Amino acid sequence: MWTGSHGADDGASVAAVVSDASGGTAGSASPDLVEDLAIANRILFQQGVLDAFGHVSVRHDKHADRFLLARNMAPGLVSAADIIEYDLDSNPLNAGGRSVYLERFIHGEVYRARPDVIAVVHSHSPSVIPFGIVKSVPFRPVFHMAAFIGEAAPIFEIRDVAGDATDLLITDRRLGAALAETLGAGTVALMRGHGATIVGKSLMEVVFRAVYTEGNARLQAEAMRIGPVTYLSAGEAKTATVNVGGQALRAWNLWRMQAEGKLP
Amino acid sequence: MWTGSHGADDGASVAAVVSDASGGTAGSASPDLVEDLAIANRILFQQGVLDAFGHVSVRHDKHADRFLLARNMAPGLVSAADIIEYDLDSNPLNAGGRSVYLERFIHGEVYRARPDVIAVVHSHSPSVIPFGIVKSVPFRPVFHMAAFIGEAAPIFEIRDVAGDATDLLITDRRLGAALAETLGAGTVALMRGHGATIVGKSLMEVVFRAVYTEGNARLQAEAMRIGPVTYLSAGEAKTATVNVGGQALRAWNLWRMQAEGKLP
Amino acid sequence: MWTGSHGADDGASVAAVVSDASGGTAGSASPDLVEDLAIANRILFQQGVLDAFGHVSVRHDKHADRFLLARNMAPGLVSAADIIEYDLDSNPLNAGGRSVYLERFIHGEVYRARPDVIAVVHSHSPSVIPFGIVKSVPFRPVFHMAAFIGEAAPIFEIRDVAGDATDLLITDRRLGAALAETLGAGTVALMRGHGATIVGKSLMEVVFRAVYTEGNARLQAEAMRIGPVTYLSAGEAKTATVNVGGQALRAWNLWRMQAEGKLP
Amino acid sequence: MWTGSHGADDGASVAAVVSDASGGTAGSASPDLVEDLAIANRILFQQGVLDAFGHVSVRHDKHADRFLLARNMAPGLVSAADIIEYDLDSNPLNAGGRSVYLERFIHGEVYRARPDVIAVVHSHSPSVIPFGIVKSVPFRPVFHMAAFIGEAAPIFEIRDVAGDATDLLITDRRLGAALAETLGAGTVALMRGHGATIVGKSLMEVVFRAVYTEGNARLQAEAMRIGPVTYLSAGEAKTATVNVGGQALRAWNLWRMQAEGKLP
Repeated sequence: MWTGSHGADDGASVAAVVSDASGGTAGSASPDLVEDLAIANRILFQQGVLDAFGHVSVRHDKHADRFLLARNMAPGLVSAADIIEYDLDSNPLNAGGRSVYLERFIHGEVYRARPDVIAVVHSHSPSVIPFGIVKSVPFRPVFHMAAFIGEAAPIFEIRDVAGDATDLLITDRRLGAALAETLGAGTVALMRGHGATIVGKSLMEVVFRAVYTEGNARLQAEAMRIGPVTYLSAGEAKTATVNVGGQALRAWNLWRMQAEGKLP
Repeated sequence: MWTGSHGADDGASVAAVVSDASGGTAGSASPDLVEDLAIANRILFQQGVLDAFGHVSVRHDKHADRFLLARNMAPGLVSAADIIEYDLDSNPLNAGGRSVYLERFIHGEVYRARPDVIAVVHSHSPSVIPFGIVKSVPFRPVFHMAAFIGEAAPIFEIRDVAGDATDLLITDRRLGAALAETLGAGTVALMRGHGATIVGKSLMEVVFRAVYTEGNARLQAEAMRIGPVTYLSAGEAKTATVNVGGQALRAWNLWRMQAEGKLP
Repeated sequence: MWTGSHGADDGASVAAVVSDASGGTAGSASPDLVEDLAIANRILFQQGVLDAFGHVSVRHDKHADRFLLARNMAPGLVSAADIIEYDLDSNPLNAGGRSVYLERFIHGEVYRARPDVIAVVHSHSPSVIPFGIVKSVPFRPVFHMAAFIGEAAPIFEIRDVAGDATDLLITDRRLGAALAETLGAGTVALMRGHGATIVGKSLMEVVFRAVYTEGNARLQAEAMRIGPVTYLSAGEAKTATVNVGGQALRAWNLWRMQAEGKLP
Repeated sequence: MWTGSHGADDGASVAAVVSDASGGTAGSASPDLVEDLAIANRILFQQGVLDAFGHVSVRHDKHADRFLLARNMAPGLVSAADIIEYDLDSNPLNAGGRSVYLERFIHGEVYRARPDVIAVVHSHSPSVIPFGIVKSVPFRPVFHMAAFIGEAAPIFEIRDVAGDATDLLITDRRLGAALAETLGAGTVALMRGHGATIVGKSLMEVVFRAVYTEGNARLQAEAMRIGPVTYLSAGEAKTATVNVGGQALRAWNLWRMQAEGKLP
């Protein structure tokens, strides 16, 4: 298996490869964006999309060839101080000795392959995993909230790229690029025996999509057990993606309050 | 697709179409009713019937040709100050620049078609959606608490009215009227790929019904997986609707305390 | 349908039929027992066995021909002041104008028929209901915690007693007696389209049994979907009922703390 | 059935068999280990792996022929003061009159048979039990987080050892040894009609494994209902066990905070 420069990273501390002035410099990311990314982490945990594992990133607002992602830690505990910048090779730029995620290459390679993508979620969301390990049944949108799935989500099979004895993790650039290729121009890629990767044009959008990807999986599985399912048509998926997606702020505002423990 | 005067409303702010004196005038809704509607929103969120989406309305207590519904926001966050009056064309009367729900036409057209209806819930309640997308299996009451479903709930198929490429939303009067026609004289209409609409003779009744519509869906699906199901007979459904429905206050009192975070 | 003296009770207030000195008299129930019954109500709500409906009673500790049961209210809100005494005809003895449960006859008739029974739960517990409406699949113990179910739980079919158009409620002595007859010498009787009735030799035991009846139903349904199930043998059910039941205090102590909101 | 010296223990108080100086002596267990064991109890309860029943133990850090386990109580309530030392015959060494678990022999016999094992969980985790009672379907890892399950988990059938009328509990050394034999060199042994026993090389590892054993069971059952499942290969299971297991601290830190009620 080909190994990139950080492929052998075991999650232990990683020295910053590129020095970066911290705090207030012209090149640093917007504090609001960093704070939103921290909130996105905690929302996805509180909504049950991420557990102790999985991550969410956002493309840097001033450098399109960088992205922001937490240090190696549970998403539910992330605050702004835990956010690190990476280049598109997934090298940390200001880790300052903090350990980084083994699978940061998911993010770097998706941002490289998809200039239109602004935010990425990698999850082990429980209702989604079964659709990644049952290859014969397409994962398709069953209601308007999940129209963004489109016609059907592709499945990334790591065995096709790296053989039959991997740890299933995306631990180098080559594996990240192969996953990005499976994703193609889509919004959701299932990962066999592992989870899913979901993309959006903003943090708010990718959080919305990650939550309703899980919801769609639960509904599709349940409906299939009742009888033959009427899926969204291609036209419905396209129209509803735009119109329903325009309401994502309503959900973000609610979920943020829930993640902050402000609701009963 | 025919579009009513607010059909193109994208959720952005809507100017009040009809001026309405605020506060204490003879024509204004009872403050208790407004407060109950706010509570109903929060109960339905807390009970898992509504998430960031869906809504509940009540007919105006002084003007039978008006109804009350929150501004465009997550139901779990609604308070009395967020309630807006609408006429039966679903025009907001005192929005004062606040944005309104795209799907308010569900409410206006059901109130128009059903003079006996005092309150309406539109939900995406998770166990109910599968029964809307599996058209071959009728949704029927399996226990006394859901007797109000009657013989079986009809399914509204938006494709029959507006073709195969809609966003599935009820965004104008024509679609609202078609949904109301599917509902007929019933209590619950399933909406394919979308959710359900439920009606009652009071806020308390419609909240009770929305909660137990979700409960019945979970039980029916589960029972069908075990073996052949004995449903409520038509006579049982009719008798139990009256006698069980008479106990709804007990539930309202409990759920209100839960929604207010007053129980462990 | 035969109607007892309180059969037409609609949950509205009921005057005390038999006067009873309140507080400290020789005949009054132990304050500890009354307090335990209030706690049992809240435990069963917190554990998801009761929702706004269902009830738990205990036989009077000084008068074997009386029992204690809350007034008509949600179990999760019951405190000691809400407990009322009833005779075995299910007449309230000290209601003092408070409304009583329509289905108190479940309790009165079970205590009459089963002198060994000290406590009774009537629940609509969600995993149990499907086994009451699928008559072809016996509800049987699948793990040691639910050994008390014995060989299989019988199903009470109200149609056999009162025809095809009832409200499914046990609203008079005749229906209560028929249910008690179905229960026989057992511990659990399923009620078609309604719920279950569970008995024990103490409040602690009946609470333990009601929680694990729900647990067994979830496990049996889940296991049946995976493949052919190995149930507890008759010998295992008998032995484990005694040995596992002896550990019920451990659960009661935990559940009480949860019901009181004392655990994270 | 052969009965060890404590085989007839009914959960009532047990006098200390071997006197042991309490507090600060050279032979006593590390206070940090005792505290971690208390935390492990509360984590496993909070994560839904243990309810009022089940237990977790750790091998003594100074005496490889002893282990630490709580007194007979609900795991969710355990603090450091509740931890008792046992020898490998499962005799309590410093119970001081406190009652002990009927099934402590699970722990003693596994530590005896498996010198590499440092920590043991015995659970009745709800998604796992169905796989123990359906003998025809192997329990296998479906995602990287549960790679430690290996090829498939064996099922312990108590009838093969002690006949058809036991209480299913592991209440003596002989039954414990038989269970340990079924476990063999593996990580998870299912127990028919009862639960599972899971082992690890540290408390952190066994907690991680117990949580993801439950997760794998839920996913495998769900996936089997959708269609034919692609399981982890033997090579994937081996590689991922090491690489994913190395991230267990991330989960422990999160779960500890949840168990302490420090997260919304």
